[in-house]
Amino acid sequence: MIGSAMTTDAYESLAAHWTRLHHLQHLAAIASWDRSALMPPKGNEARAAALAEISGLMHRKRTDPQLAAVIERAANEPLDDTQRANLREMRREYRLATALPAELVERQALVGLRCEHAWRRQRPANDWAGFVANFRDVLAIAREAAQRLADATGLSRYDALVEQYEPGMRSAELDRLFGDLRRWLPDLVAKVVARQSHETVVAPSGPFPLAQQRALSHAIVRLLGFDFEAGRLDESTHPFSGGVPEDVRMTTRYSEGDFTQALMSTIHETGHARYEQNRPREWLGQPVSVARSFGVHESCSLSFEMQLARSRGFADLLAPLLSEHFGAQRAFEPDNLHRLLTRVKPGFIRVEADEATYPAHVIVRYEIERPLIEGAIEADDIPALWDEKMRALLDVSTRDNYTDGCLQDVHWSDGLIGYFPCYTLGALYAAQWFAAIRRRAPDLDARIARGELGVVFDWLRDNIWTAASRYEIGELARRASGEALNPAHFRAHLERRYLMPQVTPPPQA
Amino acid sequence: MIGSAMTTDAYESLAAHWTRLHHLQHLAAIASWDRSALMPPKGNEARAAALAEISGLMHRKRTDPQLAAVIERAANEPLDDTQRANLREMRREYRLATALPAELVERQALVGLRCEHAWRRQRPANDWAGFVANFRDVLAIAREAAQRLADATGLSRYDALVEQYEPGMRSAELDRLFGDLRRWLPDLVAKVVARQSHETVVAPSGPFPLAQQRALSHAIVRLLGFDFEAGRLDESTHPFSGGVPEDVRMTTRYSEGDFTQALMSTIHETGHARYEQNRPREWLGQPVSVARSFGVHESCSLSFEMQLARSRGFADLLAPLLSEHFGAQRAFEPDNLHRLLTRVKPGFIRVEADEATYPAHVIVRYEIERPLIEGAIEADDIPALWDEKMRALLDVSTRDNYTDGCLQDVHWSDGLIGYFPCYTLGALYAAQWFAAIRRRAPDLDARIARGELGVVFDWLRDNIWTAASRYEIGELARRASGEALNPAHFRAHLERRYLMPQVTPPPQA
Repeated sequence: MIGSAMTTDAYESLAAHWTRLHHLQHLAAIASWDRSALMPPKGNEARAAALAEISGLMHRKRTDPQLAAVIERAANEPLDDTQRANLREMRREYRLATALPAELVERQALVGLRCEHAWRRQRPANDWAGFVANFRDVLAIAREAAQRLADATGLSRYDALVEQYEPGMRSAELDRLFGDLRRWLPDLVAKVVARQSHETVVAPSGPFPLAQQRALSHAIVRLLGFDFEAGRLDESTHPFSGGVPEDVRMTTRYSEGDFTQALMSTIHETGHARYEQNRPREWLGQPVSVARSFGVHESCSLSFEMQLARSRGFADLLAPLLSEHFGAQRAFEPDNLHRLLTRVKPGFIRVEADEATYPAHVIVRYEIERPLIEGAIEADDIPALWDEKMRALLDVSTRDNYTDGCLQDVHWSDGLIGYFPCYTLGALYAAQWFAAIRRRAPDLDARIARGELGVVFDWLRDNIWTAASRYEIGELARRASGEALNPAHFRAHLERRYLMPQVTPPPQA
Repeated sequence: MIGSAMTTDAYESLAAHWTRLHHLQHLAAIASWDRSALMPPKGNEARAAALAEISGLMHRKRTDPQLAAVIERAANEPLDDTQRANLREMRREYRLATALPAELVERQALVGLRCEHAWRRQRPANDWAGFVANFRDVLAIAREAAQRLADATGLSRYDALVEQYEPGMRSAELDRLFGDLRRWLPDLVAKVVARQSHETVVAPSGPFPLAQQRALSHAIVRLLGFDFEAGRLDESTHPFSGGVPEDVRMTTRYSEGDFTQALMSTIHETGHARYEQNRPREWLGQPVSVARSFGVHESCSLSFEMQLARSRGFADLLAPLLSEHFGAQRAFEPDNLHRLLTRVKPGFIRVEADEATYPAHVIVRYEIERPLIEGAIEADDIPALWDEKMRALLDVSTRDNYTDGCLQDVHWSDGLIGYFPCYTLGALYAAQWFAAIRRRAPDLDARIARGELGVVFDWLRDNIWTAASRYEIGELARRASGEALNPAHFRAHLERRYLMPQVTPPPQA
């Protein structure tokens, strides 16, 4: 044991362990991407078996009983700050991974798969009764898993679920954030809708050939700084960003009749992708290099899609690209384009919602899934609550309309509870990041209009992307923006964009 | 131990072990395919590390010391014929996998990688001296590995290497086969060249747009029965067939100036692909379901590329497809097309060789690599021997021309010795298979011309593809064609195709 107090042997063996996990994760990620983007149908069964095999292998590695003692030994070694942050993340991963016995994880996957599979037919058939019969089982196991995670972490059931996606976030804080939104958002939405009812918007006239849309997407992605030497843009039924930090695989989906969906979803995924491409290279494979949280990931995609790409300045940048790819038309005139991309309209469907009404959809889900997991309500209570909350927040009724109401999302069918808040946390963080960027560059809109996006990329790179999991979320936010999460920035952003006159950027020099 | 003599517990645990290997192999295969077909350049390092990780993992599984005893126990269990064949293949795999210590495998990979990397520059630079300096190390390790394999199998060094690719094949048999070819092939080639010198061939006139070539390739691959629901055709620098039996990934490479290369290489890969797609489904994951050997695999690709696609009948089938995709031209007239696809011309380069001169290239390599591995000659002896043998067999001189001589192949640089014979074994087997198919369907050429390819596919499926590794090669050949490998069929095929008048198929009804 000579010199053991001065060595970092235990830490080094942990780092090697996580590097091996990183390599296996690489194969799982590429094979998963391939499954969604390329795989022919008859490959599915074999792929599922192969992915299950490597999942099991990784789970056994993550829960190796010897790790606990090595983690404790490493804590007494002379580590630098980043190593210590890495050890903190290792401990967190280990605690969450070991909280759930493999038997429960398998049972949960099985029941979730069955419920989700049936949901695909039940949703279009408006079959709540059929769904809830399966969902009761999903909920029972989700509660069991939440209890196990709660026991392991000392948190409440719901908070223990959230901890998996948004470390450090608690429902007390969510209550505060969402309570704040609840107070002013419905009124703001009503004002915006009234204001926009006086505006004229020229709709783009299609069709928009797929080859042109593909070329446009690649041009935009390049403009947004995605490194095509370290990633790809392909197509899949549901757009997503996958792969590995060294080789990020984005997908999108084109429709001939409407180019805006593919364009905006591509921009969204590019935000995710640049975070991944800019995780600290020297720490890849280690937990400290992993994206901070799902909320922070979403803050990157929404920084691109909402803060940047729907800004008035970006319309100046986009307009000539649209004319170049589709031929000029009146709808592409920048002021009109901006109005087109900032329509606000309360609706049933979360994934179709604009940035002003989106939080309401999340709050409805949060206010239902939290008491659901804590046992205060039961599965059968969902539809009435859904309708009541949608009326209160967005003034739309989903009574007896399960298809466009509580059956619209895949998440719960699969047992995924505690994730929804991340979407709105991402929107709040993105507004906070852009407030900080505006402090650094008060002429941000003019810069964007001129295509000088460097200030945005540099700020995100220095403060968010390369910081990865070095700091806990609160500290990350404070270092980046001077304060912990503050929803006032989101409110100010919406008021500025939707309730004040939009300034047309000055003509270019 | 009650009833232990009547159970198959040991066998079942082996089968489960190989199924797990199959799942890992699936991920390695898809990630390897992706690396060659899609991966952007900066992904390479991470991908290599991930593939090395899973290779190591699979090697440890394949050489698990507990397997030996379980294999012995399984041998005493009441197995059916297929299970017993499976156990035979498991034993063979285990014996070869355990023969080489991991340290040697790693050393070999490292030295091979260095030699191959330098070879990429040395070949175009005609730098034999630079190459041989690295190759001496490669050869030393290859001899060491061959000795280890020889010790484990009781074979000679060279035969032990061949055993990895062509189980059961021995150099005594190769001497007999290649000795036979050596006696009649140079004379036959000379006769064909003389005969073809009187023929007129109209060259196709390009360019041939890539989009049209892609569409043509897909049409041909479909015509050849490839199941696009269980595989894909993409593009890569070097065409290959990879993936997994449930999801076969073929690649090809298009050049605007010449459509025949991509077309013929696609047909070649489709032959490989259909073998993989038709391996016995109920045994996938088990060694008994694996392709019998590399020679038999090549017999499937050459059955498609040489026997079928360069037959006179196939030109009738191809001609309208070419006109459809590229517009009609005189070169596509079937008789001309057939002449175009059956040119014989002795040359320097193996991969550009026609089917008549190809075996000469393989014999040259066999007659050098065998004494090389056995220690009868040294690396420095290669160029003189190469030149001497190329003169004797093909009447071309490679003196001082290493680029187009002994430096042309990647195989040796990488330590791959004992593989070359498989190419010609494949050609011999393919001729033997087609002789059997002609016995079943004496009107084969007319059927091919009419597009009735079922008799070819059915014969290959019943006799080769689904037989997989159920029988040792000799028995496979006898069951399929009534005799062990017999080079007379290849000779008869060449004489029939190249020295007899080609009968134009009768006009279609």
